[in-house]
Order: sequence, then C-alpha cells, then structure tokens
Amino acid sequence: MSRYLKAAFAALAPYVPGEQPRERKYIKLNTNESPYPPPQKVADAALEAAKTLRLYSDPESHALRAKAAEVFGVGMDEILMTNGSDEALNFAFMAFGDAEHPFVFPNHTYGFYSVLCRANGIPFRTIPLNADFTVNTEDYLSVRGHIVLANPNAPTGIALKKKEIERILQADESRVVIVDEAYADFSDENCLDLIHTYENLLIVRTFSKSRSLAGARLGFAVGQAALIDDLNRVKNAVNPYNVNSMTALCGIAALDEEGYYREMCSRITRQRERTAADLRALGFTVLPSSTNFLFASTAAHHGKWLYAHLKENGILVRHFDQEGIREYLRITIGTEAEMDAFLQTLQRILKEAEGA
Amino acid sequence: MSRYLKAAFAALAPYVPGEQPRERKYIKLNTNESPYPPPQKVADAALEAAKTLRLYSDPESHALRAKAAEVFGVGMDEILMTNGSDEALNFAFMAFGDAEHPFVFPNHTYGFYSVLCRANGIPFRTIPLNADFTVNTEDYLSVRGHIVLANPNAPTGIALKKKEIERILQADESRVVIVDEAYADFSDENCLDLIHTYENLLIVRTFSKSRSLAGARLGFAVGQAALIDDLNRVKNAVNPYNVNSMTALCGIAALDEEGYYREMCSRITRQRERTAADLRALGFTVLPSSTNFLFASTAAHHGKWLYAHLKENGILVRHFDQEGIREYLRITIGTEAEMDAFLQTLQRILKEAEGA
Repeated sequence: MSRYLKAAFAALAPYVPGEQPRERKYIKLNTNESPYPPPQKVADAALEAAKTLRLYSDPESHALRAKAAEVFGVGMDEILMTNGSDEALNFAFMAFGDAEHPFVFPNHTYGFYSVLCRANGIPFRTIPLNADFTVNTEDYLSVRGHIVLANPNAPTGIALKKKEIERILQADESRVVIVDEAYADFSDENCLDLIHTYENLLIVRTFSKSRSLAGARLGFAVGQAALIDDLNRVKNAVNPYNVNSMTALCGIAALDEEGYYREMCSRITRQRERTAADLRALGFTVLPSSTNFLFASTAAHHGKWLYAHLKENGILVRHFDQEGIREYLRITIGTEAEMDAFLQTLQRILKEAEGA
Repeated sequence: MSRYLKAAFAALAPYVPGEQPRERKYIKLNTNESPYPPPQKVADAALEAAKTLRLYSDPESHALRAKAAEVFGVGMDEILMTNGSDEALNFAFMAFGDAEHPFVFPNHTYGFYSVLCRANGIPFRTIPLNADFTVNTEDYLSVRGHIVLANPNAPTGIALKKKEIERILQADESRVVIVDEAYADFSDENCLDLIHTYENLLIVRTFSKSRSLAGARLGFAVGQAALIDDLNRVKNAVNPYNVNSMTALCGIAALDEEGYYREMCSRITRQRERTAADLRALGFTVLPSSTNFLFASTAAHHGKWLYAHLKENGILVRHFDQEGIREYLRITIGTEAEMDAFLQTLQRILKEAEGA
C-alpha cells in the first residue's frame, strides 16, 4: 500500500481469491466451475474472433445481445453484457447505492456484496438467515434500502420460491431488488419473466457456471430498459469497451448450443442428487441444493478438519471459516468419476478417523 | 434512465463511442487502431486458451505479468494487468482521487479523464495547452492535485520530453503523476525506467494500438510495488477476475513477437512522416506527431466540412466539435495504400471545392 491510497480502500480487508492451485493436481470441487468443456463451436468462435483483434470490440455488444435477447425472450434494450457477472453487480451497486441508499442482503450469501458496498462507500445491513439457512421473506418486506439476493443462494445452495421474490418486489417499488441468478440454470424456476411486470427487478446472470465459460469472463444483467440504461451509463463512464471480441463471439456460440448445455446441467443435477444421498448415508446433513454444489456438514468432524484432510488426499473443496457456517463444506458437483473419487476418499478419511 | 439512478450518473452527458460503422465499408482512420493484424501466434494462443475456458482465469495473471516484466525490465509486482487501459485508469482514479484529492490535466487531452472524474465524484481542473498545443511544464509544477498526462498527448499527437515529466514528478512528491503512454511505442522516448526513481509515477499502457489487439481489451499499469498494490486492492474490490484467459494468452504471444511489432511500428511512423509531408504540401498545418495519428487543419476549410466530405467519399477520420480544436482532423495512420487513398481523395475534394 502506498501513502497515496484513499482511506476507503486502505481499510478494506485484503481479498483472498478461491484457491487455484498450480503446485499439484487436485480434483477441483472448490469454485463451482462446470466439469464439462464448452462445445467445439466455442473454440471455433475464439479462432474466428482472433482474426479481427486489431479492431476495437463493439462497445454495445450488438450481436451478442441480439442472440441473448432471442434465447431469453427479452428485448435487446433489456440486456447489458459485462466482463463477468461481478462487473454487472458492480455497475448496479454504483448506479443505485450511496450514503442515502444502503443495500440489504442475507448474512450468509455471496461474499462479494459487502466488498462492493465498502468499495463504493455504500452502507449495508445483513439479515440473518433462518436456522435452516432459508431466507425469511418477511424480513425483506419493509426493510429500507435496495436488496440483493443470490437465488439460489450461495454457499447454501437453497432457492427462494419465485412467488416469495414477487412478494419482496411488490412490497416496496421504491427499492431495486437485484436477483443474482448465477446458479439458476440448476434450479426449477427463475425470475426472468418477472422483469416485464416489475420495474424494480434487476437480474444478474453468468456464463461461468452452467455455460462452462468461467475463463471467458461473461456475465449479463436483465431488467426493464430504463434500469439497463442506468447500468449502461455507469459502464460508459468507467469502461465502455468492457467485453472483448473473443468473449463476445464465444458467448454467441454458447447460446447457440442450448441442447448441449441442458444435457450438461441435467448430468450435473443427477450427480448432485446422488452425491447428496450418499453423503446423507454417511451421516452428513446436506442442505437441499438448487445449484451445482452441495453445502454439507457432519457432527463427527469439524469443517476445517475435513477440508484439510480432503485436500491432503488430493480433493479440493471450499471451506468458509466464518461464524455460523464453519462446520460446513461447499462441494462443487463434478463428473460422475470425480464424485466417485470424492465419496470414496471421504469414506476412507472417516473410517481412518474412527479407527484412530 | 430509471427513477433509481444516482444523481451523479444521471447528470453525466451520454457517452458517444467512436464510430464503428456497419452500414458501409470505409477506410477507417478514426480510432487509432493498427492497420496490421497481430502475428499468427496470437490466434494460436486464442485457440489454445479456448480449451480451458470452463476454468476461471488466473485473477493475478501470473504468466502474463511474468512475460511483461521480462520484456519491460520491471518486477512482476510492478505490473497490473487490466481489461483495457481504460480500466487501469479507472482503478487509478478510484484509488487516489476523492473530494480532497482532485485531478489536473490539460484542456485538450483524452476525453475519458473528465468522465472518470465525474463518475467517481472527483473534482478536476483542466490547464490550457500552449497556443502551439504543447504542454507547458511550469503550469504543473505547483498545481494542487494528482496529475494525469497522456504522453504523447491525444488528440494532438505531441510528446512532452521525458526530462520535463521528471521536473513535474520531482516538484511535489505528494501527488501521483499518471503518464498515459498509450502511444509511446510510436515515440522516441518513454518514462518506463523512471518508475525505479519516482514513487509517485504510474504509467498506463495498452495493447490496443502498437500491438494490434484493440479487440482483446488488454492494458496494464506500471509503477513501484506499493502503487501497484493500491490498484490491486481496487481491482479486487470491484472485479477480481478482470482479464479473461484468452486475452491473457494472446498478450503473452504478442509480447513474444517484439521484432514483428517493432517492424510494424516503423512502417507506421514512416507512413506518418510521409503523410505529414504530403498534407503540408496541400497547405495543411500538421502538428508534430509522436503517435500513430496526425492532427491537422487547413485555413481553406472547416474541420467539420472536411470530415463530412471525407466520410461521403468512404474515408472515416475523427473530428472533435470542441472549442479550440474544431478546425482539426485526427487522422489515424493506416497502410501505405490506405494513406495513398486518403491523400488522393483529399486532393480531389480540395480541387472540387476550388472549382465550385
């Protein structure tokens, strides 16, 4: 840190990215990536885009938005494309939050929301989840401030019903409700079609999970044209050419392969249900997941201990050393073979501990 | 615009991106792109990166920074990679500017600086260039606030001598001096090696111009480790995974081809000097350029008129309808054939106007 850094950033806790180990080969179940590669069309698109790299990318991502509008059944002016969904969230926090417009979100949710508030000088309040880790809709009906809900939530994996989100939207239309649907493709329902009814609904999505494009950095926001115009103003004020040409073409190719992605998502949800059942058989409490990960704990061992022993044995899961969730592991769903290896290793670790 | 947008953004003038025409084929001399494609290695790199897109990109861009550190003769902790150099500028403005820490820059320079100030709530002051469009060093010695200088400057193309930048750096070390070297590869000198002497120097560079990668969105900042740590804190607070995997690998491939890029830059500077001489022969005033563009005017016609007639004839240049520079055209240097076409068309337009 230099002597020139503003106090707001100097006070921020240093960021710890999810482990991306390079020293050793792990079965990587820690960052909710898809275990399946994108279809061949995506690589073809990257190569095609490489031919025109000397020219600037389209700052308005016309072709990509046109394709996304068609796939998601919304208007082109109801979508903004971003450099990952984190950027969409940042634009939204910048557009709507300030000292007089705080944000509200659950105490256990995506850790980036509080970081964004601190970075942008926005006060925030967290509301405790219920004891079973569900969101209590009543808590959000009369609260003051814009609301952001990851739905399904992370790291719990639990989804709030669409009709509950609607109650929150209706309760006070002077607030923006951001619904972060990073994991919605693994869930039974989503709120996309509600944007036509509620002017205060902003949905944020990503290509990083269900669409196997975490490395391409592509996210988007969906909402009524006026809300999207707000985000565009922020984008144009901080980084007008935010989506590069390769990622834009890869995104179009990915959206062209709905069938492939649906099949990959159903493979993942099948593995999720099977892994959840196997974990329960091993005595674990497993929260009901609508995502591509499980949040699970056992009374027999501390979360930190299990995390460390799995890592020692070549399996990387995510552990949050935080009050209220530190006994849990967040386990990304991999391929069938990866989940077999995970369960066998876990079983062995548990047995050895019993024997010791 | 929605009723939820913060006043700071509602008040911003809507952004107008440089024309990227799609209705017709133009000789495109309006956005300072390179007329030469990146080398084949870059396309190979894009295809290689496409194989691992399901995984997150490295949030710290280790491999790319290692390569850049080697090429530019600085330490890895003295470089931050960004999603275009606009993002590096935004991080720097966010890190160092606030109500008590204004920014200062010339009245004619890259238009994005004032936009970034407004977006981030940073007061700013502009200092008039001299009548010949040069920067007067004296004006910056005792001014209060952080300084940002495009060097060479845009849209003038004129470079301030390195020893003049040093005087500004030395005059008051409590200010950060950001030197935006987007065009430095077309100039005789640059300030890169000064970072080891001055803790208050931050250099911003881009792969968009001399490295033919405008569409890949890659920029970087260079400075002492403490300054770079500041920018990293901002980055991690707003978009930790800011550089995608394809762009990172393309950047490494580009840095691997120094010989190719040096040859392209010297082709461009040769065309620049020849075009400048031809324009002067046509009665134009041409500012001395250290960039890949020329800034030129003629007493015979208004800038706006010339811009429009060139466009009508299939040649796109840049015109800024602003007090003090509205009689000038900014002409990107293209290939030899493109500059031939430009000069012939211009000559014809001038002749027809004389005859009329």
